[in-house]
Amino acid sequence: MSIRIGIFGYGNLGRGVEAAIRQNPDMTLAAVFTRRDPAALTIATAGVPVVAAADVAAWTDRIDVMILCGGSATDLPTQTPALAAHFNVIDSFDTHAKIPAHFAAVNAAAAASGKVGIISVGWDPGMFSLNRVYASAILPDGQDYTFWGKGVSQGHSDAIRRVEGVADGKQYTIPVEAALEAVRSGSEPTLTTREKHTRECFVVAEEGADRARIEAEIKSMPNYFADYDTTVHFITAEELRAEHSGIPHGGFVIRTGKTGLSGEHRHVIEYSLKLDSNPEFTASVLVAYARAAHRLAAAGERGCKTVLDIPPALLSAKSPEELRATML
Amino acid sequence: MSIRIGIFGYGNLGRGVEAAIRQNPDMTLAAVFTRRDPAALTIATAGVPVVAAADVAAWTDRIDVMILCGGSATDLPTQTPALAAHFNVIDSFDTHAKIPAHFAAVNAAAAASGKVGIISVGWDPGMFSLNRVYASAILPDGQDYTFWGKGVSQGHSDAIRRVEGVADGKQYTIPVEAALEAVRSGSEPTLTTREKHTRECFVVAEEGADRARIEAEIKSMPNYFADYDTTVHFITAEELRAEHSGIPHGGFVIRTGKTGLSGEHRHVIEYSLKLDSNPEFTASVLVAYARAAHRLAAAGERGCKTVLDIPPALLSAKSPEELRATML
Repeated sequence: MSIRIGIFGYGNLGRGVEAAIRQNPDMTLAAVFTRRDPAALTIATAGVPVVAAADVAAWTDRIDVMILCGGSATDLPTQTPALAAHFNVIDSFDTHAKIPAHFAAVNAAAAASGKVGIISVGWDPGMFSLNRVYASAILPDGQDYTFWGKGVSQGHSDAIRRVEGVADGKQYTIPVEAALEAVRSGSEPTLTTREKHTRECFVVAEEGADRARIEAEIKSMPNYFADYDTTVHFITAEELRAEHSGIPHGGFVIRTGKTGLSGEHRHVIEYSLKLDSNPEFTASVLVAYARAAHRLAAAGERGCKTVLDIPPALLSAKSPEELRATML
Repeated sequence: MSIRIGIFGYGNLGRGVEAAIRQNPDMTLAAVFTRRDPAALTIATAGVPVVAAADVAAWTDRIDVMILCGGSATDLPTQTPALAAHFNVIDSFDTHAKIPAHFAAVNAAAAASGKVGIISVGWDPGMFSLNRVYASAILPDGQDYTFWGKGVSQGHSDAIRRVEGVADGKQYTIPVEAALEAVRSGSEPTLTTREKHTRECFVVAEEGADRARIEAEIKSMPNYFADYDTTVHFITAEELRAEHSGIPHGGFVIRTGKTGLSGEHRHVIEYSLKLDSNPEFTASVLVAYARAAHRLAAAGERGCKTVLDIPPALLSAKSPEELRATML
C-alpha cells in the first residue's frame, strides 16, 4: 500500500514536496490543499485534486500523512496543531526559540487525536540538529560550531527590499573560510558574529535613487547587517534575474573535541550541505520523515516528535534487514 | 543513579572506553573483565576491580551495560551473544559482510534474556552507516561514496610485517583528493579501487634484508596492495617510533543527488571525521550508545539493535526538553 501524502500549502516548499514524492515509489500524492481558489491553481501532477484548505477535514481517511508547507511566522503555529487533530503531520517549523511552545501545542493536539506529528524537519532545524546532538554526545569535551552558506537568506533579502529606493535585491550569507579553518584546527576559537559570516548584497536601485545612501542604510541596519562585514553590489534587474534567481543554500556543522585520560587526542566531526535548491532539499527531508511518521502511527505511536526522536532506519524505504546487509 | 559500565577486554579500545567514561558524569566504571590474569593487570582507574572473564556472570546485578572491547575476527562472534544472556551489551563488530549473522545470534540471546544488545557501534560501521542511511533516504536519486583516511590500517600494517625481512611497519590509507573533488562536483563518477585511495607504507627492514625485494613483494600483494598505487618508505625503528606510533584515522561519506521535477538541482551531503585516535573515538561512540542501551532496557525493550534503530536523543545526557530548547 502506497503512503498517501497530502500537501498543505503550495509555494516553493509545496512544489518541492510534490517533486520529491515522485522520487519515492512507496508514496503517492493524494491531494494539494490551498487557501487560494483551488480552481485557479494548476499543480505539476496531473489528476491530483486541488482542494480548498477549509475542506481539509473531509480528507481524514484519504491521507496517511499531511506535509505542511506554510511559513513559520504565522502559518505553522496555528496550522500544525489544527491539522494534527485530523492527520499525522510533518512541518518545517524553524523559529528555533519557539520550538518548545510549538512542540507543546502539537503534542497536545496529536496526543488527543491519536496521531503522530513530527515538527521542525528540514536541515536547520533538522539534519544540522541531528549532527549537533550526535557529535556532542560522542565528544562531550568539545565545542559545536554552525556556519550557514553560501546561500540566499530570504529574511535578509526582504530587509534589503524594504530600503527606500531599492527595486529588488538578494542577499547571500557566506561563511568566512579563515573561521572554518580555525574551527577545523581543533583550537576551539571564540568567534564573533563578524568573524563567522560575511553578507553580500545584490541590489537593483530605482532610477535616480541615491546609491551611496542605499548602501550606507543597508550596511548599518541593526540585527540584519550592522554586525557583519557587508558588501553591496548594484546590478540591473536583468542581471539579478539571470544570475541570482536560484535559492541555493548550505552550511557546516563542526564539532571538535578531546579524548584520552588527559585530553591528549583531538577529533573533528564535520557535516556539510551544499544545496542548489534550499526548498527542494528541505522538501526531500520532509518526505523522508513522512515515511517515518506513517510507520510510527502504524505501530501505535502518538504525539509530537522531532528528528531527535526518530530511529534513522524509519526514514528509509529499505527494510531493516536490507539496511543491515547493505548500508551498515 | 549513575549508569554502571563494565569493560570486557582491556586493549586499546578498552582503555579508550575507560577514558571516555570519565567524560560522562552520568556513568561509572564498575569493573574491567580480562582473560589475562587479573592480578597482573593494572588499569588507569583506582579502586575499580579487575575481574577474570570467567567470573563475569556473577556481576549481572552490578553492571547496567557491558561494553565489549574484543576483536571482530574471533572474540565478538562468540562473546557478544554469550554476554547478552546476562547483560545489556554494546559491541563494535565491524566485519560488514557478517553483520546479519552476528545480529541474528545476538538477537536470539538478548530476546531470550530480556536484555538489549547494540552491535556494530563505532564510526564504520556506525556513524558512517548512519550518514549513508540518512543521506540516501533524503536523496533517493543519487550516489553514495565512502572514503577512508588518512589513517592507519591495522590489517595492512600486519600484512607488511608478515613480509620476510621486515622488522616492523605501518600503513596509511589515503583518499585521493582528485576523487573527492570529482565526487563533490555531483558528477556521480564511477571510481575504481585505485582511483579512490593510495597506500603509503613505512617499513623498518631487518639488517641486510633485500629492500628492493621487500618493496616489490609489498606492492604486488593481492587484496592488500596490488590494486592500489602504493608507496614504500624505508625508515629506522627510531623514526617509526617517533613519527608513526599514533593510531589516527578518519574518512568521508558523501552523497550527491538530484531533486526537482526534471532533476535540475544538485545537492551534496558530506560527513567527515578526522581522528587523532581511532580506538578512543570508537570508544566514545560505544559509551554514548551504552547510555541509549540503558535507557532502552529501562523502557522495557529487548533484543538486538544497531545504530540505525536508535533515536538520536537517547545518546545524549541532556533531557529531551533541554535538547529541543538548545540543540534543535
